[in-house]
Amino acid sequence: MKKTLQKVRQSLPASWYYDPDHYQFELEKIWYREWVCVGHVDALQRSGDYFTTTIGDQSIIVTRAKNGAICAWYNTCTHRGSRLCTSLSGRFSHGRIICPYHTWTFSTDGELLATPNRIETSDFNKDNFSLHGVHADTWRGFVFVNLGDAPVEDLADFMADKGTYVDNWPLEDLHPVHREVHTVACNWKIYWENYSECYHCPRLHPELCKIMPVYAKGVFDDGDLPDWEPRFDGDKGFGHVAEDATTWTMDGKTELPLFEGLTDQERDDGLIFMDIIGTFYLVAHADYVRTVRLVPKGPESTDLVIDWLLPANPGDVCADTIERIKALPMLVIEQDGAACELNQQGIKSRPFDHGILVPQEYALWDFHEWLRDRLGKADVSN
Amino acid sequence: MKKTLQKVRQSLPASWYYDPDHYQFELEKIWYREWVCVGHVDALQRSGDYFTTTIGDQSIIVTRAKNGAICAWYNTCTHRGSRLCTSLSGRFSHGRIICPYHTWTFSTDGELLATPNRIETSDFNKDNFSLHGVHADTWRGFVFVNLGDAPVEDLADFMADKGTYVDNWPLEDLHPVHREVHTVACNWKIYWENYSECYHCPRLHPELCKIMPVYAKGVFDDGDLPDWEPRFDGDKGFGHVAEDATTWTMDGKTELPLFEGLTDQERDDGLIFMDIIGTFYLVAHADYVRTVRLVPKGPESTDLVIDWLLPANPGDVCADTIERIKALPMLVIEQDGAACELNQQGIKSRPFDHGILVPQEYALWDFHEWLRDRLGKADVSN
Amino acid sequence: MKKTLQKVRQSLPASWYYDPDHYQFELEKIWYREWVCVGHVDALQRSGDYFTTTIGDQSIIVTRAKNGAICAWYNTCTHRGSRLCTSLSGRFSHGRIICPYHTWTFSTDGELLATPNRIETSDFNKDNFSLHGVHADTWRGFVFVNLGDAPVEDLADFMADKGTYVDNWPLEDLHPVHREVHTVACNWKIYWENYSECYHCPRLHPELCKIMPVYAKGVFDDGDLPDWEPRFDGDKGFGHVAEDATTWTMDGKTELPLFEGLTDQERDDGLIFMDIIGTFYLVAHADYVRTVRLVPKGPESTDLVIDWLLPANPGDVCADTIERIKALPMLVIEQDGAACELNQQGIKSRPFDHGILVPQEYALWDFHEWLRDRLGKADVSN
Repeated sequence: MKKTLQKVRQSLPASWYYDPDHYQFELEKIWYREWVCVGHVDALQRSGDYFTTTIGDQSIIVTRAKNGAICAWYNTCTHRGSRLCTSLSGRFSHGRIICPYHTWTFSTDGELLATPNRIETSDFNKDNFSLHGVHADTWRGFVFVNLGDAPVEDLADFMADKGTYVDNWPLEDLHPVHREVHTVACNWKIYWENYSECYHCPRLHPELCKIMPVYAKGVFDDGDLPDWEPRFDGDKGFGHVAEDATTWTMDGKTELPLFEGLTDQERDDGLIFMDIIGTFYLVAHADYVRTVRLVPKGPESTDLVIDWLLPANPGDVCADTIERIKALPMLVIEQDGAACELNQQGIKSRPFDHGILVPQEYALWDFHEWLRDRLGKADVSN
Repeated sequence: MKKTLQKVRQSLPASWYYDPDHYQFELEKIWYREWVCVGHVDALQRSGDYFTTTIGDQSIIVTRAKNGAICAWYNTCTHRGSRLCTSLSGRFSHGRIICPYHTWTFSTDGELLATPNRIETSDFNKDNFSLHGVHADTWRGFVFVNLGDAPVEDLADFMADKGTYVDNWPLEDLHPVHREVHTVACNWKIYWENYSECYHCPRLHPELCKIMPVYAKGVFDDGDLPDWEPRFDGDKGFGHVAEDATTWTMDGKTELPLFEGLTDQERDDGLIFMDIIGTFYLVAHADYVRTVRLVPKGPESTDLVIDWLLPANPGDVCADTIERIKALPMLVIEQDGAACELNQQGIKSRPFDHGILVPQEYALWDFHEWLRDRLGKADVSN
Repeated sequence: MKKTLQKVRQSLPASWYYDPDHYQFELEKIWYREWVCVGHVDALQRSGDYFTTTIGDQSIIVTRAKNGAICAWYNTCTHRGSRLCTSLSGRFSHGRIICPYHTWTFSTDGELLATPNRIETSDFNKDNFSLHGVHADTWRGFVFVNLGDAPVEDLADFMADKGTYVDNWPLEDLHPVHREVHTVACNWKIYWENYSECYHCPRLHPELCKIMPVYAKGVFDDGDLPDWEPRFDGDKGFGHVAEDATTWTMDGKTELPLFEGLTDQERDDGLIFMDIIGTFYLVAHADYVRTVRLVPKGPESTDLVIDWLLPANPGDVCADTIERIKALPMLVIEQDGAACELNQQGIKSRPFDHGILVPQEYALWDFHEWLRDRLGKADVSN
């Protein structure tokens, strides 16, 4: 046995999943301090291109500045606080961000360039009214922002340990070709917990279990099973697709070329997961890549933004291909979403102080430890 | 004069009718401690039959266990808190309550029977993860639950003084044959107060006043009138149907057989009320029985669940009969509901600290005394 | 230069525009203490006529009593708090306000006249149960109420300094001929601020700027410009309509007769504004009058009630005329409303503590000083 908990553990206090004050506290301590993936550089090819995104209740503009750098700004004018951009994406004409209220005009570097029609006073200094900035950077094509004043590490360091899982996937050559947004009536942690264990798989995901046989045993990885023995030298004990399957489609087949450069085990396993705990995960299949971003909308509501990436431009991908690579993941997400909503509902029972974790829910325990560390709170003696 | 208040009394503080914190306090002190009627045993004929019900924000499963006992459980899995049942009613196949998330399997006795696919650890003891129980019992066919840890009295004692009013009605032989649910935008106490006086009857219920002549005088009972004199030896002074009426239908007539075993006065009166203060009332007519359950949905919203009972199975009752026994009570409830909503709206007026009670509103005073006692709060010096 | 701020000033703290507790505090300190315009006497021609209105969460009845006086009452029965009137306007039959719940009957003077069917007790004194009153008065045809216990000044004094602006307009001869209600998803102060400056005009109101050329420079008045010089002796430096325009219509023309009695400059300017800071403004055009009432509906929602007045009865005004005098003002209000909603959205940005005011936003500063004075709070050192 590779991982798994050796004893029963308590889950988080039930109120943490619905209390509005605790939700706000988590926004402050986690969502406004961590590096959060918000999109892909494909949307920012030319300087002046932008998209807007939301973290908690904060609206952010992400854009490519004149010098080519990716920049991010709070979507608020420094004059009297008007929203600057209302579109999900677009391009700033002449690289200028113009407030729709009084036409204060900012560069994509956040600098206040002009304030038309303002009557001058000697004490007005444009330098004092630059846009409020947000740290932004990219990792292999993905755009991240960090709302903290001073991130504890830069993005490269942040990704160093996580990114190695997908070293062999050509992420830089991929393009987002399809997006789905799925709203789930649950706290963001409930969804992350659901993602973190496969104990629910036998019941919830019969279709997926055909493609991933070990899931039918309620674990993610062969190595999670008590009686596991490596099949070959260097076997990592990961979960892998069935003998007759190649990837996550309804029938396990693919018409797409497999990525070159994968190891034998990577191609044989058919997929690998890369997690950014709590906020994002990437599923690298042998023929396509899929990402899921969690977007908290309130104590009991979470949006999932799901993107599919291929080594092709969106316009060159036919609808049938999208349909094939979308069907199984969306079915699984809908099944998970329904279970998460039941979990959210049940958790308010008065005598239910907290749940418990069984051995194969080890990744929930890791998540909870990570969370408690950031919140500076030990909730229970475990 | 039999009852009535001898002097003007203050009603409850206005804020108690809309303040969310006070609402939560009342849930804790009343709804989560009192015996509350939640349904009828007809829905639980065989072991494994169940229905779900809501008290405050708590979802409860009520079921008949293998040994025939009526049991109730919080509708929450002890693993990670998922809702167990999502249907309003049904039957547990093989008497097993199976969590839809990870298939933890409970008996209808609440015992944890199985946890499929769980990797074993030596410290896991199924006995620690039984369902959280709720006290449940029945009284003459009606199912009650009590969410308190230790009810101060058992249901039989609780009903002892209340039940005598309907001793002569064959409640055990009756079956629910129709249900209506009516939502009213008011605090539960506003509706109970409305039910507790007939001072509003002349204005709100002209149709009902034709059937119940004393209601046209703004009182429930002949005995409430200052000039009342008993009509015969042992006259209890109750309200009674008009000379040419038998029961509560639009024309006062009935095609149904009258219940045998009623006293002359009971049959002559045509009806009697049995109250469980604050939460439930039963109207025993000469030919049918009707119950109304209050279900608080929030500080300013209440569901009324109205059931009609007859000595017949639902399938044997024709639609015309339902229509006849439903029409007048539903008309009255809709009239009352509209008035309750106006009361709820008006009560927020800033100078309105509290209302007052007039003599024939004595049952409101009793209700308020009962409430203050349970809340441990004297609100005013009366 | 006549007015304008001489240095950059801080705007209000951002949270004051959305915090529910602060909103409630402002209701108490401002909306429940100030004289607030709620309508026009035309709706109260005969004794017994009434209309209902809402200030914050308080519903108020305004009526003309038997003696001809305008009176206002909280719309709540003194018995158990029912709403009394549910219509927006109407006439009390026989001058009696009858509660729809228990028929307690009040005169339009607020006196409790009758309590039908009430069983008498010796301690009941009708005089103790008069309606709760609200101060009410009129100014040149407009009806005002004041929910304070003891207004610091009577309405005539309150209007003395404000009313002089429109001394030459025959307000007493005018009748409301059309009403629009426009809901804006913003705090009431955001809308008042928008009304208080023309710095946004060049961008938001191209059509209006054609009629009001100085608005194209981002100021309300010629006198706001640094290089202003009076055009003639006694020039007040107000904003005025374009050379070829007469009034606020899409083409600046009018078919209506101009008001007699205006000074040359008033007619030449084409309009003048009369403000009741924070709650109401009247725009006196050369040919029609328009009023706008702010009605706060919540921390982030405000209704605007816009009335047009002419020296004619509503029935004598053709639809084309209404259309002509309505088109430009409604266009402007819709443009302003959209900007206000963006301002409301943007103001929640975490680093945005407060906005700043530029010289031509002097009226916002005056508004903020007025507000801080009433709230008893200095928010910032300016």
